[in-house]
Amino acid sequence: MNIELVPIQLPDNANLVLGQTHFIKTVEDVYEALVNTVPGIKFGIAFCEASGPCLVRADGNDDELLESAIRNAENIGAGHVFIVLMRNAFPINVLGRIKDVPEVCTIFCASANPVQVLVAQSEQGRGVAGVIDGSSPKGRESAEDRAVRHSFLRKIGYKK
Amino acid sequence: MNIELVPIQLPDNANLVLGQTHFIKTVEDVYEALVNTVPGIKFGIAFCEASGPCLVRADGNDDELLESAIRNAENIGAGHVFIVLMRNAFPINVLGRIKDVPEVCTIFCASANPVQVLVAQSEQGRGVAGVIDGSSPKGRESAEDRAVRHSFLRKIGYKK
Amino acid sequence: MNIELVPIQLPDNANLVLGQTHFIKTVEDVYEALVNTVPGIKFGIAFCEASGPCLVRADGNDDELLESAIRNAENIGAGHVFIVLMRNAFPINVLGRIKDVPEVCTIFCASANPVQVLVAQSEQGRGVAGVIDGSSPKGRESAEDRAVRHSFLRKIGYKK
Amino acid sequence: MNIELVPIQLPDNANLVLGQTHFIKTVEDVYEALVNTVPGIKFGIAFCEASGPCLVRADGNDDELLESAIRNAENIGAGHVFIVLMRNAFPINVLGRIKDVPEVCTIFCASANPVQVLVAQSEQGRGVAGVIDGSSPKGRESAEDRAVRHSFLRKIGYKK
Amino acid sequence: MNIELVPIQLPDNANLVLGQTHFIKTVEDVYEALVNTVPGIKFGIAFCEASGPCLVRADGNDDELLESAIRNAENIGAGHVFIVLMRNAFPINVLGRIKDVPEVCTIFCASANPVQVLVAQSEQGRGVAGVIDGSSPKGRESAEDRAVRHSFLRKIGYKK
Amino acid sequence: MNIELVPIQLPDNANLVLGQTHFIKTVEDVYEALVNTVPGIKFGIAFCEASGPCLVRADGNDDELLESAIRNAENIGAGHVFIVLMRNAFPINVLGRIKDVPEVCTIFCASANPVQVLVAQSEQGRGVAGVIDGSSPKGRESAEDRAVRHSFLRKIGYKK
Repeated sequence: MNIELVPIQLPDNANLVLGQTHFIKTVEDVYEALVNTVPGIKFGIAFCEASGPCLVRADGNDDELLESAIRNAENIGAGHVFIVLMRNAFPINVLGRIKDVPEVCTIFCASANPVQVLVAQSEQGRGVAGVIDGSSPKGRESAEDRAVRHSFLRKIGYKK
Repeated sequence: MNIELVPIQLPDNANLVLGQTHFIKTVEDVYEALVNTVPGIKFGIAFCEASGPCLVRADGNDDELLESAIRNAENIGAGHVFIVLMRNAFPINVLGRIKDVPEVCTIFCASANPVQVLVAQSEQGRGVAGVIDGSSPKGRESAEDRAVRHSFLRKIGYKK
Repeated sequence: MNIELVPIQLPDNANLVLGQTHFIKTVEDVYEALVNTVPGIKFGIAFCEASGPCLVRADGNDDELLESAIRNAENIGAGHVFIVLMRNAFPINVLGRIKDVPEVCTIFCASANPVQVLVAQSEQGRGVAGVIDGSSPKGRESAEDRAVRHSFLRKIGYKK
Repeated sequence: MNIELVPIQLPDNANLVLGQTHFIKTVEDVYEALVNTVPGIKFGIAFCEASGPCLVRADGNDDELLESAIRNAENIGAGHVFIVLMRNAFPINVLGRIKDVPEVCTIFCASANPVQVLVAQSEQGRGVAGVIDGSSPKGRESAEDRAVRHSFLRKIGYKK
Repeated sequence: MNIELVPIQLPDNANLVLGQTHFIKTVEDVYEALVNTVPGIKFGIAFCEASGPCLVRADGNDDELLESAIRNAENIGAGHVFIVLMRNAFPINVLGRIKDVPEVCTIFCASANPVQVLVAQSEQGRGVAGVIDGSSPKGRESAEDRAVRHSFLRKIGYKK
Repeated sequence: MNIELVPIQLPDNANLVLGQTHFIKTVEDVYEALVNTVPGIKFGIAFCEASGPCLVRADGNDDELLESAIRNAENIGAGHVFIVLMRNAFPINVLGRIKDVPEVCTIFCASANPVQVLVAQSEQGRGVAGVIDGSSPKGRESAEDRAVRHSFLRKIGYKK
């Protein structure tokens, strides 16, 4: 068994959600979850079918994001993994709905950062063993950093 | 630290759910979640207690599935991991309920495929580092593949 | 890429929750989730910001637990990871609420055991590849063990 | 304004769920929620569209239950109300999923009892003002009644 | 059909939750939901069984609250209604868990105020048609009132 | 006790959500739920405090919707009731998040239709006894109506 790092290729200004699920219905259910939550969201979804024809199943409403989702799913190549790339929305807007999709198992990460996926390869297939999401911390926040954080979240309206 | 591949031994026509939890109550709560959701479901649940007596705690309503769940939990041998093997039901029927069990942390996978579990071993104990669920993708779906998928999901009634 | 084991340093009588999220708002949202659920809970929360200033963001209502949460987050040093250390409450009391925080992706573990975190290190950053939570199983529960478990859960009132 | 009692006409051995929602998509989403949860469930769903064509929208996989759901929805005649009639499943199996449908507001009742619906009528339209679900209590449970209840729930497997 | 006002008799310093459910299992499931969420919570639960023996089913861990819950359930006397009276906890701590109990339909109110329940009576039985929870508003909040509210929620720690 | 009909005054192109909750924190929590879900949403929230100062507590990010929410809350005047008026979003986008707010009890309705609220008045206060949401049904959908509905939901992307 071997573990390699697969970098996500993230289109400009896009966000990603990467997770594990267990059924081809995921493509349609995540599509509906996204459209039902954020009017105007643009996205592509790709899912690695893990048995039978073993195709990358995909859907979306934006050609660039859809094509990129498929390419990233192919690069990861791990059974039952799915990836969503989105614009005009942030993962926080839709993540709760994706977690509630009945066939979704877990979410590895949601990010606009560079992401590297740890992919384990065996004779049988491939699986995600973790993600490196952005950079490591460079220090602790000071009282001033904390005030800036607090103020920023109120300025964008996300906290009262 | 060493990482090995532990194959799940899946009884014929069974499905599995593999996850991380944190309390021996899991065995009873998952039992109730399953029975309360699908009338007629058959299953076995096993959980690796991670402190004190460190026993594989288990319950179920089908001897073969129960015995198999225990054996698989022993093979994985990772603290606070649980496995469910089921027949007469599919993971999609019950996964939402299992995710809602208050002590469940996450679901690694849900599958009827061959599954290999990446298990890390230290001097202290063992932990799951990921799963290889089924096979890797062999291609992208074509427009025709997509029509077949769409139609199949309507034929089984899962999508309208 | 290298994978190392980072032990969690758990204060006496504390419990931990370790997970992946994707936004600095996590610190405030998890704070509110905890206080809104268990009156009298004591805790510290720390989160590894993964872009921009890349600070360990933190909050809490107990200095020792807060300081320990920050130190553990620094030791793990993986982007978008968060840790909660708590007293006067157990993970089962609050885990559902934390899972429902809209920016939380997944929970790696919840435990009062010794925990070792598998941390992958690349040139870009660090990521969690799994946890070793407590010890491995030493045997199967007997009928008597099972009766003791059943009785214990009723004695503490967690099951009827 | 006038309030009348509308009795639900419940087919033999059927259970009902009655609720308030706000979109014609309810018919499809509840259909999928039911089929995705209980293999073999038989049901009819009817929904009172409250604007535009104002039709009773309906779907299901059993003609008798579908026809009965439509007739009951017509009898109630209250905007945005929906009713589900089911066999081969109980409300407890599917109620959580129905509550999670994103356009569902609330559930008035779930029952296999005779149910009378309080329907308010104004010049504008009709609305549900409550339900009378089965009979009123005839006494308190004794210690023996309680033991019977406790035992019954374990016998059917719903509680451990 | 007649609608009367039934006042809840609330023990000193207690809070109540009043809702509609559909199965005698409610008594045990709500019990577990409460104990699993708030360590040290004291409570009584009573439920109006609506068919068969039609008993007020009840459980709890505090005699006064249990007796009071039963009396209030008897006074309301409406099929499938349940009431929880609690101390050492507030409804906000536990309401999410009660809403998630799979057989619970809806919550009419949660309050420490005087509550009057509108109860409809027919020849068949009784049903809740609404609640009058506390007093009607006496004015709009001013900028100063708003600042006091904002500050109060931060002082008790419920908001950051 | 008297029951009257209170019409909601709905601003042009606005949608409403009307529900029961139990704490002044609702105003802030629903605010955050809305902003965290739909980028660009415009809304006003008003809540009838039911004890102490008994003020209509309110917040929002659009003056017209805020003022209208307050006026409607005053007209209803029922303890612990809240109303949300929104533009640039539909109830289906945000209803799940509002239902998940820990102090929210239930949702009476979500609508863009004319809505009349049944309000019960006692010497103590006022309470909601139901809603008349839009118009009553005028007929059953035909096979053609059904095809139009099915097609419409796919055209707007809400269903696949």
